[in-house]
Amino acid sequence: MSDGAGFPPFACVTIVGVGLMGGSLGLALKARGLAQRVVGVDTNAQSLAQAQDWGVVDSGATDLADGVREADLVAVAAPVGVIPALLEGISAAARPDALVTDLGSTKGRIVAAGSRLFGPRFVGGHPMAGGVESGAGAARADLFAGAAWLIVRAEPFILEQDPFASRLAALVAALGARPLPMEATCHDRLAALVSHLPHALSFAFARTVAASEDAALAREMAGGSYRDLMRVAAADPTLWQGIFRDNQDALLAALIAFETHLRDLKRSIENTRD
Amino acid sequence: MSDGAGFPPFACVTIVGVGLMGGSLGLALKARGLAQRVVGVDTNAQSLAQAQDWGVVDSGATDLADGVREADLVAVAAPVGVIPALLEGISAAARPDALVTDLGSTKGRIVAAGSRLFGPRFVGGHPMAGGVESGAGAARADLFAGAAWLIVRAEPFILEQDPFASRLAALVAALGARPLPMEATCHDRLAALVSHLPHALSFAFARTVAASEDAALAREMAGGSYRDLMRVAAADPTLWQGIFRDNQDALLAALIAFETHLRDLKRSIENTRD
Repeated sequence: MSDGAGFPPFACVTIVGVGLMGGSLGLALKARGLAQRVVGVDTNAQSLAQAQDWGVVDSGATDLADGVREADLVAVAAPVGVIPALLEGISAAARPDALVTDLGSTKGRIVAAGSRLFGPRFVGGHPMAGGVESGAGAARADLFAGAAWLIVRAEPFILEQDPFASRLAALVAALGARPLPMEATCHDRLAALVSHLPHALSFAFARTVAASEDAALAREMAGGSYRDLMRVAAADPTLWQGIFRDNQDALLAALIAFETHLRDLKRSIENTRD
Repeated sequence: MSDGAGFPPFACVTIVGVGLMGGSLGLALKARGLAQRVVGVDTNAQSLAQAQDWGVVDSGATDLADGVREADLVAVAAPVGVIPALLEGISAAARPDALVTDLGSTKGRIVAAGSRLFGPRFVGGHPMAGGVESGAGAARADLFAGAAWLIVRAEPFILEQDPFASRLAALVAALGARPLPMEATCHDRLAALVSHLPHALSFAFARTVAASEDAALAREMAGGSYRDLMRVAAADPTLWQGIFRDNQDALLAALIAFETHLRDLKRSIENTRD
């Protein structure tokens, strides 16, 4: 399969963090012929060895500097809280012409750090795809197919006039995703609304059910709406704590807006009392 | 297909309200050979004619008394608010030995009305299945497969010692669902928690997104968690207003419990401020 026809492939792409997202990026790059070589960097040597066995990456490195040295594209697919520090490490070893991006769910701090370290060569990214399972073992070459993939800078920008952002957007399109340019503040406000808020609601819903004295019976009788919210709540809580922490202002604003609408709904239920 | 082997079929089942739920019951009864004849009752003559064309029911009646007269099982699949009045009408025309049940999402008032009118011959039912689409055109013979189907009385009861409840439970099992006996108060508390609460949250979430100035862009970038909550919010709002109204005490209690957990989560996000 090569849907990337016409896209000049990268010689060497290094993916920092070979979990569900990074692993799926590796598989998709290889399946679509978008990279001549894919290197995985992970602190966990065993995960890295498995990722090589599964064909998710061509080779691996546990040392960040070693892993990124030859890359013309570095993509950081790690929990949002550690991405700024990883970018520091990458800046000390990467080629001076490498394009650098990330796959984090928040963008404000990450894009600020990336721009400071790499100038215009850093372009933030956020594929709106994921899953309940984690680890490279859950990686899928089609994880990003059809998903929006935000292309993010700190300041307003015109994609067509921005060679680095355009190159990332072309790669994203070649991966089968939908590149969507956006500035970081707008991204974080919208991500809070359409992703972080539903996760927060689902986590709070799961806790409400778990705290009920009838939790076991509740699960036995539950139907589709319960399952839909529980599917979201099955996401990795540690990963999401980091996302909530990193985007707390926008998420708190979204939560306050939600609470207003929930209060209205509650009042309309109370007012129908007969 | 006949998974109902061993279950003595009903001679005539009348389904009052031939929408998604009633229509799916009709299809399932016929597909599994659980009724010799299925009669549909609906005030909408056109829906009824279509339901006959689609093979959802064998014959139809727009008059309630005409439709239920010969039935040895009457199943009411109508919006919860109108079920007590329909039960009144059925009691005036049904056979004195007919088993009577319903498929409503709330049980307190319905079971109270049914018990008053029919004594032990009324047994409340609630299949935990449904869908976003409505009408007999969306009906599916496998809608209830694997779903819990609550078997409900006002007072505590032992299923094995209750011939009418046992007969309904055996039918439910023959339909491929999981009969779950429960008393009405417990049902309404649990249904509020696992079904009415997630619907209320999804409706309020949908309103929060719709009220945002970025609603269009938000939809364009949204991923899986947004879609899961929106799927629930796509349910028929009029139907659900009726359910919320009929179960307001239990739903308000579930909402208050949820708000406590959401406040805790909000506080934990605020406390991570650095």
